[in-house]
Amino acid sequence: MTSTISASTALLTDHYELTMLQAALRSGAAHRRSVFEVFARRLPDGRRFGVVAGTGRFLEALKEFRFTEAEIDDLRRRAVVDEPTLEWLADYRFSGDIHGYAEGECYFPGSPLVVVESTFAEGVILETLILSILNHDSAVAAAASRMVLAADGRPCIEMGSRRTHEEAAVAAARAAYITGFAASSNLEAGRRYDVPTTGTSAHAFTLLHDDERAAFTAQVDSLGKDTTLLVDTYDVKNAVKIAVEVAGPELGGVRLDSGDLLVQAREVREQLDSLGATGTKIVVTSDLDEYAIAALAAGPVDAYGVGTSLVTGSGAPTAGMVYKLVQHAGDDGQMIDVAKKSKDKISVGGRKWALRRRNAQGVAEAEIIGIGEQPVDDGDDRALLVPLVRNGEVVAPTDAASARAVYERSRAELPAKARQMSRGEPVIPTRYEGPGMGGVTQR
Amino acid sequence: MTSTISASTALLTDHYELTMLQAALRSGAAHRRSVFEVFARRLPDGRRFGVVAGTGRFLEALKEFRFTEAEIDDLRRRAVVDEPTLEWLADYRFSGDIHGYAEGECYFPGSPLVVVESTFAEGVILETLILSILNHDSAVAAAASRMVLAADGRPCIEMGSRRTHEEAAVAAARAAYITGFAASSNLEAGRRYDVPTTGTSAHAFTLLHDDERAAFTAQVDSLGKDTTLLVDTYDVKNAVKIAVEVAGPELGGVRLDSGDLLVQAREVREQLDSLGATGTKIVVTSDLDEYAIAALAAGPVDAYGVGTSLVTGSGAPTAGMVYKLVQHAGDDGQMIDVAKKSKDKISVGGRKWALRRRNAQGVAEAEIIGIGEQPVDDGDDRALLVPLVRNGEVVAPTDAASARAVYERSRAELPAKARQMSRGEPVIPTRYEGPGMGGVTQR
Repeated sequence: MTSTISASTALLTDHYELTMLQAALRSGAAHRRSVFEVFARRLPDGRRFGVVAGTGRFLEALKEFRFTEAEIDDLRRRAVVDEPTLEWLADYRFSGDIHGYAEGECYFPGSPLVVVESTFAEGVILETLILSILNHDSAVAAAASRMVLAADGRPCIEMGSRRTHEEAAVAAARAAYITGFAASSNLEAGRRYDVPTTGTSAHAFTLLHDDERAAFTAQVDSLGKDTTLLVDTYDVKNAVKIAVEVAGPELGGVRLDSGDLLVQAREVREQLDSLGATGTKIVVTSDLDEYAIAALAAGPVDAYGVGTSLVTGSGAPTAGMVYKLVQHAGDDGQMIDVAKKSKDKISVGGRKWALRRRNAQGVAEAEIIGIGEQPVDDGDDRALLVPLVRNGEVVAPTDAASARAVYERSRAELPAKARQMSRGEPVIPTRYEGPGMGGVTQR
Repeated sequence: MTSTISASTALLTDHYELTMLQAALRSGAAHRRSVFEVFARRLPDGRRFGVVAGTGRFLEALKEFRFTEAEIDDLRRRAVVDEPTLEWLADYRFSGDIHGYAEGECYFPGSPLVVVESTFAEGVILETLILSILNHDSAVAAAASRMVLAADGRPCIEMGSRRTHEEAAVAAARAAYITGFAASSNLEAGRRYDVPTTGTSAHAFTLLHDDERAAFTAQVDSLGKDTTLLVDTYDVKNAVKIAVEVAGPELGGVRLDSGDLLVQAREVREQLDSLGATGTKIVVTSDLDEYAIAALAAGPVDAYGVGTSLVTGSGAPTAGMVYKLVQHAGDDGQMIDVAKKSKDKISVGGRKWALRRRNAQGVAEAEIIGIGEQPVDDGDDRALLVPLVRNGEVVAPTDAASARAVYERSRAELPAKARQMSRGEPVIPTRYEGPGMGGVTQR
């Protein structure tokens, strides 16, 4: 057992990918050209749209997907695969092409989010890494996007680190930032992804001091009058009074973390105004989700801190994306479309293209998916697949700021009902077009 | 932005912990002796017991909780805290004591799962790291324990990596192993935590070959007759026939990943037996949770593969544990019990002890929690707090195998109704005893 995290991402992989590799190397099929696609059969229950997040993290992880001596030794020790397979893995470096939706792009059922073109061997072993990252980050992004919409311009702050795996927390902060969150509490997200971080104090700080006045004085002395004081440790009304006495009317903000937030926010606003602290902001942070945020729209709230429901995808903690072989070369080198025959799961063989069809006003009308030759862009349709990896080299941006810009543009294109919090159908239908697919519509 | 994961865990921390530290260093309160406790106010809705998981991972992460030059530089660049605070952090090394429930122990509402004793400064900055790890791992362990109980002796295999963050996946495999899962698909969990790993092939392997017979032949050639063949890519009945033709009656197993599993398992069992493959096992793997596993008890199923519902805590993706200051020294050095005054949240000040009260047959009857002097063990009561860290040194085992043994013993002590899958009350009540707490019972 080792306690440190290896720099290699190669073992973030399911055992069966390597046994398939072993068997396919032996049968020779491993070297067949293949196309794998990532897609979601449906959006999480009731969601109006999905948001692709994690692509940039995947591309960075792909650079570290190498079977170094440490990984090979471990696979040998545990007899996971045979020596010819270990030899192949030791030389592994993804050398194929990957296209996909730009990170931050909105998506719909069936959207071909990532298209991996390589030999079977090179592509099959990426399944778990790519799905883990996209399923997690996209689930958080989908929830976060709804919270930002519900907040309707008021800033949202991500503070859910403590409610999820310590590394998932960093990725969640990044995903939330992509969909418009203003900041995160997570310091590692600040370092690693340039997400702005923020925070002032917890109840423990107040409890540590002899009384609330001593705590507030200590905080203002050190962090300045612009700080946010937590006012619900004992009695809110008394705390607000002390807070303004200590910091003066220049006090930056007060935070409420319990109780009936709408009622309290109104009372606190009135009290602050009566004390002359008309510029002091009210931050609320107690178990919020998109519905609670929407319910607080009528209140004098200046910012929302969101924790548990954000990092757990607000009821949908995984995005349900799958990674499927859709095409491979036969013995004659000709590409063959393939799909599992399943009554309960929709799978369409063949390499896909995808367009966002827009009306004359630029509003999205449909997700158009086809196989074969992609139609020429007529100006209203927007091609969705962009190059991510070419001959093994990452060619797309991987930073959160780029994805945030993509999201903002993509979301702005969606019909107005994308803002609805109620459960319902995807905001645009998915339509399959082109040879052999004409007319199939999925909602 | 950097793409690699730092070996230091120090920034897996919320911003406000460092601003509190800064303010408390300035006020002088930072050096007060303090006690912080981790507990859960309630179990996830309807669960009969919780399982502490992650303690070992936390202890390993604590060893790496250092603010090296890289962390200090980043905090300075982003102006998170002032120079005196950075100087203090550069020298930081936890030097206090930590007691807690042994990893794998069952727990109940209010159980003092981790008790951190140190200065305020040393303890306050551990909040996020400890909660992230315990909340995630314990949520998975609680779900996993129910699945193992539902499987009633048949092996469960963890295969949910693709449905959760890539590092959370490794931790989830470890948590599942602690509660009795037989194996995981996750290779990194095998390397890092010695969790047995397993896997054979996916639909992609079948689709890659020209037909099912070619795929099965390739797999058996390479992995042996003892392998498990996936038989639901096209037509199950035909696939089972081909599978036994290819491997003979010594075929290790067949896997079903779609459709009505109970009906199919019965049909496949009958078919296998009729072909003489009476020892061939049936593995089922399609969207299982504890209820689906229980429903399959009547079927001829030999093993369960569980994915999404395991890694997402089967409806409860976080354990809801909190980290609270319960005691600190005053100016005179005397320890003072503290708790936030909240109408809606139960918090009890003071350093706790905890006993599992057992009847003469050794069956657990109550979780007894108190403050002050811990009663002398009378033979039936079992003390639950064990030393984890002494003067900054980790003194408890941190491996998954030790936690698995603890869980097995602890679970065996619980009343029989702990096996019930239905929603209900915790299987034993939490009772507060001792000075000032007598008679309070929480269920």
